[in-house]
Amino acid sequence: MKFPTFPSLLAGVLLAAAPLAPATAAEAPAVAVAAPAKAASATRIEPTFWWVGMKNPKLQLLVHSPGIADSKLTLAAYPGVTLDGTQKLESPNYLLVNLTISPEARPGKLQLSFAGGKTKLKYAYELRARSTDKSRVQGINSSDFIYFLMPDRFANGDPKNDVVKGTRVGHIARDSMYARHGGDLKGIEQHFDYLKSLGVTAIWPTPVTTNDMPKTSYHGYALTDFYSCDPRYGTTEEYAQFVQKAHQNGLKVIHDVVLNHIGSYSNLFLDQPAKDWFNQWPAFTRSNYNSQALNDPYGAQRDLDLYNKGWFDTSMPDVNQSNPLVATYIIQNFLWWVEYTGLDGYRIDTYPYSDPKFLMAWGKALLEEYPQLGMFGEAWVGSTAQQAFFARNILPPVNGFKSNLPGVLDFQSNYAIQDALKEKGNVTKLYDALQGDWLYEDATRNVVFMDNHDMSRVYSVIGESLPRLKMGFAWLLTTRGIPQIYYGTEILMKNFSAPDGLVRADFPGGWKEDKTNKFTAAGRTEPENEAFNYVSKLGTYRKAHPVLQTGKLMQFIPQDGIYTYFRYNDQGETVMVMLNSNQDEKTVDGGRFAERLNGYSSGTEVVSGAAVSDLKTFKVPGWSAVVVELRK
Amino acid sequence: MKFPTFPSLLAGVLLAAAPLAPATAAEAPAVAVAAPAKAASATRIEPTFWWVGMKNPKLQLLVHSPGIADSKLTLAAYPGVTLDGTQKLESPNYLLVNLTISPEARPGKLQLSFAGGKTKLKYAYELRARSTDKSRVQGINSSDFIYFLMPDRFANGDPKNDVVKGTRVGHIARDSMYARHGGDLKGIEQHFDYLKSLGVTAIWPTPVTTNDMPKTSYHGYALTDFYSCDPRYGTTEEYAQFVQKAHQNGLKVIHDVVLNHIGSYSNLFLDQPAKDWFNQWPAFTRSNYNSQALNDPYGAQRDLDLYNKGWFDTSMPDVNQSNPLVATYIIQNFLWWVEYTGLDGYRIDTYPYSDPKFLMAWGKALLEEYPQLGMFGEAWVGSTAQQAFFARNILPPVNGFKSNLPGVLDFQSNYAIQDALKEKGNVTKLYDALQGDWLYEDATRNVVFMDNHDMSRVYSVIGESLPRLKMGFAWLLTTRGIPQIYYGTEILMKNFSAPDGLVRADFPGGWKEDKTNKFTAAGRTEPENEAFNYVSKLGTYRKAHPVLQTGKLMQFIPQDGIYTYFRYNDQGETVMVMLNSNQDEKTVDGGRFAERLNGYSSGTEVVSGAAVSDLKTFKVPGWSAVVVELRK
Repeated sequence: MKFPTFPSLLAGVLLAAAPLAPATAAEAPAVAVAAPAKAASATRIEPTFWWVGMKNPKLQLLVHSPGIADSKLTLAAYPGVTLDGTQKLESPNYLLVNLTISPEARPGKLQLSFAGGKTKLKYAYELRARSTDKSRVQGINSSDFIYFLMPDRFANGDPKNDVVKGTRVGHIARDSMYARHGGDLKGIEQHFDYLKSLGVTAIWPTPVTTNDMPKTSYHGYALTDFYSCDPRYGTTEEYAQFVQKAHQNGLKVIHDVVLNHIGSYSNLFLDQPAKDWFNQWPAFTRSNYNSQALNDPYGAQRDLDLYNKGWFDTSMPDVNQSNPLVATYIIQNFLWWVEYTGLDGYRIDTYPYSDPKFLMAWGKALLEEYPQLGMFGEAWVGSTAQQAFFARNILPPVNGFKSNLPGVLDFQSNYAIQDALKEKGNVTKLYDALQGDWLYEDATRNVVFMDNHDMSRVYSVIGESLPRLKMGFAWLLTTRGIPQIYYGTEILMKNFSAPDGLVRADFPGGWKEDKTNKFTAAGRTEPENEAFNYVSKLGTYRKAHPVLQTGKLMQFIPQDGIYTYFRYNDQGETVMVMLNSNQDEKTVDGGRFAERLNGYSSGTEVVSGAAVSDLKTFKVPGWSAVVVELRK
Repeated sequence: MKFPTFPSLLAGVLLAAAPLAPATAAEAPAVAVAAPAKAASATRIEPTFWWVGMKNPKLQLLVHSPGIADSKLTLAAYPGVTLDGTQKLESPNYLLVNLTISPEARPGKLQLSFAGGKTKLKYAYELRARSTDKSRVQGINSSDFIYFLMPDRFANGDPKNDVVKGTRVGHIARDSMYARHGGDLKGIEQHFDYLKSLGVTAIWPTPVTTNDMPKTSYHGYALTDFYSCDPRYGTTEEYAQFVQKAHQNGLKVIHDVVLNHIGSYSNLFLDQPAKDWFNQWPAFTRSNYNSQALNDPYGAQRDLDLYNKGWFDTSMPDVNQSNPLVATYIIQNFLWWVEYTGLDGYRIDTYPYSDPKFLMAWGKALLEEYPQLGMFGEAWVGSTAQQAFFARNILPPVNGFKSNLPGVLDFQSNYAIQDALKEKGNVTKLYDALQGDWLYEDATRNVVFMDNHDMSRVYSVIGESLPRLKMGFAWLLTTRGIPQIYYGTEILMKNFSAPDGLVRADFPGGWKEDKTNKFTAAGRTEPENEAFNYVSKLGTYRKAHPVLQTGKLMQFIPQDGIYTYFRYNDQGETVMVMLNSNQDEKTVDGGRFAERLNGYSSGTEVVSGAAVSDLKTFKVPGWSAVVVELRK
């Protein structure tokens, strides 16, 4: 189903979104009566469809149709499915329907009949069979190398969907950093080979869910519809196909989600099921952005409320996840995306801002259904302890909260690598950051990165030094955890954040009108090729060598501005890494590292291929890494 | 017993120390035979005496006498005491004697007879009755206000003990920052009233144990005898009397101890019971000073060994506490000091450097015998997580270590207060530091401080700003924990560390030849009196108001460079503190603090006594604190 059918479903309606699920929407004979001024006139049932054979037999449908609350629902007999009841909400336009779908139920269509008040509505609700494709939901782990990109800014594979009728933005404008630029899923697909040549194994696009906000919708972090892919990227079905094609190419897909807030133009906010589906304030009230309020033993209730319930931004209503109905709505939505698309993992935006108990329930529900699902959260905090608080850790619950999130974006090592590449001796901060791992259940599930869409590009941060950037890449691809590169860093894209649009520029060559194409060696300058080739070399080496993925790590206290660590495993593989943060070449005595060097007699420097015949002393050029595969 | 009897006991012997315990030494008829060249000829039995009725009935005596290992011990019948056996060590000059002292045993003298080899020795070993004085061992807690001083540098009450015959330093030299200056216990006693006028409740002197090193012995952190008070401060008996007098004056005494290392001129190192009583290296090997090696999940064994077993300094042999005999020796020593003197608490120097399992055993043994004993350790580390690792915390054991130390010197809030007094907005670091308390079992047992003997004096650090210093004092005396002031900070003593002697200057007026006496108002300049009076006012207020000692704390996220917190209790007492780190006066809206202000209508600013009639808005002058006692 192509998106152009979308506006016709919503003729004249303010809101985007509706049952966008392929093959279902058109079949649902929605009869809407007397649409209120502000609300959508179309019937919307969410989840838009469901499956038989889910571990949790319960399903709660949120039915939206003007005045439907006064109707009575009849479910035509369907073996294995029982109607447990309906539930009114504050708004007359919503009705909750509680179903139980037993393990014996077969795929098919539930015939729902709503009658009463001004409503007379029949709806064929689809129950699908679950896919048995083994390539689905592979999870994300330390064998991966993640490429993080903004779909609107990476490559424009299908100019036909640059502007979609019925959405709130009627143009693209590549010269504006806040406008949409036209990038899409097709554009990413067209560069799978480019990603593979870097050794990348997983793609993380910024959110692909429909973001039909009138301004700066390109980043995707303010969804307006829970159940559709943004038509400017592709249809919802095309997104599912995108995941499938990625899998066929040996690439996983990470789905970027926001639990804490939505866009103010969301269907769910413009016509609210009930006021208490959102954290409402007498006047706009901003979050204090301070997660410490969550676990400050001396914290004020006001600071806690502001943190959890204050709005992230004026256009981003804060979802009240402490409302169990809202929690169910959200949890079902995220089960739906996994089951529908086969995506491999979730990246959870602004993780700590959500209601703590909801976070636990959300994670539990997802992992119960998909134990292998990858999940990592964004917790942009200042200390290792606070970072570990938001992942599975060795601590007892605090204020009833114990995160069940497998991993987090590791901001602590991000601060450290940026500092380490700035000044001699700061490599010690890399050592410190990893030492903090004692607080985690398993820190190898954390995602390590040098930069992202919210911060200055690392190449600019470190004074556009190519040697230092390469040293950073060496660290990124050999330290513990799941490495993540931000699109374009491999071709020396640069700029400082604030405004953040500057670090979200188009990948040169992603648009057919681009004068240079940096997806190709010919289109890149010499330094850009040097950077690209370095990542490519080490990325593909990492991909081929489990020791860099799952091997143990041993680090030595940095000395003289040089940080030395080893990755090793029980299969006898060992890789030694030395990072020299001095301007000058240094000779390092290998004696200190006997624990790991004993039993080895020589090695090969992985990037240059140079033989290392002597493990007694090592020469490390200034501002560089040596990555040595050891041999017996 | 005055110390001058000391040399006579040791006639011609290289080492200081011996059974210095009052009333006992003279009575012990030691018969020494054929002293070896390097060893002490006198018999030494440690503990120098013991008590009946200790909870742990076991006692292990370390007997030192040349060639004694070849002798056989006979214990004359003594009801309730059994000789469990003796144990040879590597050195022929030592013998361990294992005794069991049953609860029924009465005070008296054990008649020990050693015979065999070249030894024929009789020794009357004293078993004392335990004191029942209720003022002993009061513990240290958040009701206290600690005054930390260096006895050699505070006041010289007894010029007769400035130089003690038989010790390795034959002079005092007040113009040398590394020499002894003559201060002593008597000098402290003479200024009890001064301390009390500040609101101080506890005195923490740097170690008073004998430090007979030839150089820089004044600081006391390299003991040469486990069982005596340094004769330059007073006799061991006088130290016990000092504790008693302090108690009579409402002052507690904290005994500063080093577990990790001793001085190289220690009797125990010069004639070693066995090589494995110390961590020995082929050549001098320094600690890497990096406690992170203890709980680095990726740490190298070499780094761990260097940390725990490397020497703190060339003149400080590292004690091998993993040797159970050594552990017993040390544990008994610290039980002995408590029982003998009635001291109130231990401050443990270089706490993390000791063997982790030993630390647990040491803490357990002391707290089993003296549950109320105060204890806090020095763990000079970089993060809250690492700080909390060395105190009772909410974490599971890591590498078999779980600290049982009630509290630590809180370096995290120390960094924060120094930063907060340096630059606008840094008060947020004070908020951050306390938020980190979620990792502790009870952070109110931590000691908070602005400076100490190892760091630049805070007055210098903050650019000699009296308003900022006063703001610092306000924080120190109203935040959670046990406040500690470093001697002289209240009279604006200044200087930068490195060399550290500069921050260890004499308190002016502590020597009778001093031209000014800053112990008196007349001797202080106007700014010095302003600082002194500020501490005195707030210190005595704190002493009289439990809410500032044991009240709960609630802090609000700092805004606009102003940090606001409350101390409050169930008795309806509430004190509000606002720290303004701006240059200019600020008006603060009280609305944010309704949680704590509700129910109150007015207040009094504690230091100025000014009435606060309106709790809706507060005016806080630039770089100042307001401390408001609220009224209903």
